[in-house]
Amino acid sequence: MSEPSSIHDVPTPALVVEQSTFHSNLAKMDAVLPGLTLRPHVKAFKTTAIASRLAADGHTGFCCATPREVEGMVAAGLGEDLLLANETLDTARLGALANTANITVAIDSDTTLDAAIAGGIRRVLIDVEVGMPRCGCDPADAGPLADRARAAGLEVRGVMGYEGHLMMVTDRSERTDRVGSAMELLLGAADDVGGEIVSGGGTGTFDTNTWCTEIQAGSYTLLDTDYAKLDLPFEIALDVLATVVSVSPKGWIVADAGLKSMASDHGNPSWAHGEVFFMSDEHVTLLPTELSDWSVGDRVRLQSAHIDPTIAKHERIWLADGDDIVDQWPVDLRHW
Amino acid sequence: MSEPSSIHDVPTPALVVEQSTFHSNLAKMDAVLPGLTLRPHVKAFKTTAIASRLAADGHTGFCCATPREVEGMVAAGLGEDLLLANETLDTARLGALANTANITVAIDSDTTLDAAIAGGIRRVLIDVEVGMPRCGCDPADAGPLADRARAAGLEVRGVMGYEGHLMMVTDRSERTDRVGSAMELLLGAADDVGGEIVSGGGTGTFDTNTWCTEIQAGSYTLLDTDYAKLDLPFEIALDVLATVVSVSPKGWIVADAGLKSMASDHGNPSWAHGEVFFMSDEHVTLLPTELSDWSVGDRVRLQSAHIDPTIAKHERIWLADGDDIVDQWPVDLRHW
Repeated sequence: MSEPSSIHDVPTPALVVEQSTFHSNLAKMDAVLPGLTLRPHVKAFKTTAIASRLAADGHTGFCCATPREVEGMVAAGLGEDLLLANETLDTARLGALANTANITVAIDSDTTLDAAIAGGIRRVLIDVEVGMPRCGCDPADAGPLADRARAAGLEVRGVMGYEGHLMMVTDRSERTDRVGSAMELLLGAADDVGGEIVSGGGTGTFDTNTWCTEIQAGSYTLLDTDYAKLDLPFEIALDVLATVVSVSPKGWIVADAGLKSMASDHGNPSWAHGEVFFMSDEHVTLLPTELSDWSVGDRVRLQSAHIDPTIAKHERIWLADGDDIVDQWPVDLRHW
Repeated sequence: MSEPSSIHDVPTPALVVEQSTFHSNLAKMDAVLPGLTLRPHVKAFKTTAIASRLAADGHTGFCCATPREVEGMVAAGLGEDLLLANETLDTARLGALANTANITVAIDSDTTLDAAIAGGIRRVLIDVEVGMPRCGCDPADAGPLADRARAAGLEVRGVMGYEGHLMMVTDRSERTDRVGSAMELLLGAADDVGGEIVSGGGTGTFDTNTWCTEIQAGSYTLLDTDYAKLDLPFEIALDVLATVVSVSPKGWIVADAGLKSMASDHGNPSWAHGEVFFMSDEHVTLLPTELSDWSVGDRVRLQSAHIDPTIAKHERIWLADGDDIVDQWPVDLRHW
């Protein structure tokens, strides 16, 4: 099969990124968080093609969520300063990463510290819980854990704390206030821990979290309908492209993208020409505003409510300039 | 890395199948629907290892949902009689399948028939809508569409109609009655269409749909919590295995399986030792009944509410006999 030059020829379902919107999102973020004040989180987009572009703009420190992401970044020559921001117990895999990558690992307990030591990891951040019920130690435990790590010969570069529960607070001043309270906990721990780094934040708090030394954002590159509800300057650059395979005179149409190509955990995707009725494994049933506008073979573009798990379902992303395909990016950081 | 021989050594997140339950599910189905009365739907499990086992039991006709599934089945030597049960407009890909596979394609409109003709497809089923708002023509349009197909030189093998909206009707007699009404529509269309095949059904209606000549079921092989709510004889054979990476004194624990390794469209997975609080991209936060039972490094097993999109996220499935790993199956039918 020859490579498609138009979005009309791309096999569906497919991910399509409008390059002008993508470039604009990158520029808007870079203006607020230049260089190392942004530590892009590759878990959102899972492709080294985007990471390369960010590194070229001076954002050369990255966050990874999985060992495979670390391995892929190293393989792509993007391993200058990688933070594995999730706790990992697999000493064999940590050991392999320690040998090949300039890696810093998040730890939040004696057991995760022991795994890092056993794996030969040399640098850690102390992960502190700042209000979101997930990983992270109690702020009061951060200092003693750092002491233990240093006693074992590890470099403790600082602290990390993710205020994920505040990403979607719609009112900006309320968001800023609550992020401030969460970061007060993190800064207290940072005083006890020492080191240079206070890492946190995300797309939703990229400019309201002014306490961290670096912000861990990734979704802003392509955005989704969930983040688009906020007062952020970024715009949606990613569509799921699908083909209409059936039109019912009863009022619905069916396109060939479903639960295996679009995440639904933040709700159904959005469609500019009507309602999303429901998703099945391989299909989405749509209720168009004007049924007569639609024929079998037409293309539809849907916007995801959550890009991270949506992108993780795909092998590639098509880069488009309007209807022209200008590049394709392998989604080369998938899996664990 | 050496291959793990115990589930305690499997890198997580991971899919684990208990082989005795899997074998038992296959035997229970085979007793009711032997040989070609079952047309297993590979979309549910997406691995030719399971399909091979079914073929060895005499179920040599299969349903596929995507061209890639067809291609993978042919490559595995399982292409004796493949039904691509979804409408497809991509004539280039249909052409490639027509040249390599003994394939029958579902059509429900003039346009999908035209695509099949253009792709050189030689055999079709007429897909009829029987009450579920998705693909399928009006029953009254099935005969004329079959006539057009035959006039173009295609073999029309019969009809197909999926009563997907009835899979989860909990009361058995109500389910049987409603399936009967849906199949009345399909049998009426079958009279107009001719051919030998009346294809429909699924795991939820495998023994209540007594009108079809073949049942398209796949989920029964491994089952999920959604189907387990019904009065079916099958049992859950698939777990998502995860490692506890963090324990909070506030009452929750965090394991390393999340939205990228477990589907949430039918609800959160289930856990035998407490509640699933919420899922993030890479994590699940759990509320154990007894917090003191849990330590960092422990393994948890979660049961998926919907196996199809869960399995589609993974590269492999581990086959287990209790705690022993006895085989691994590549999930080799992923993507489109």
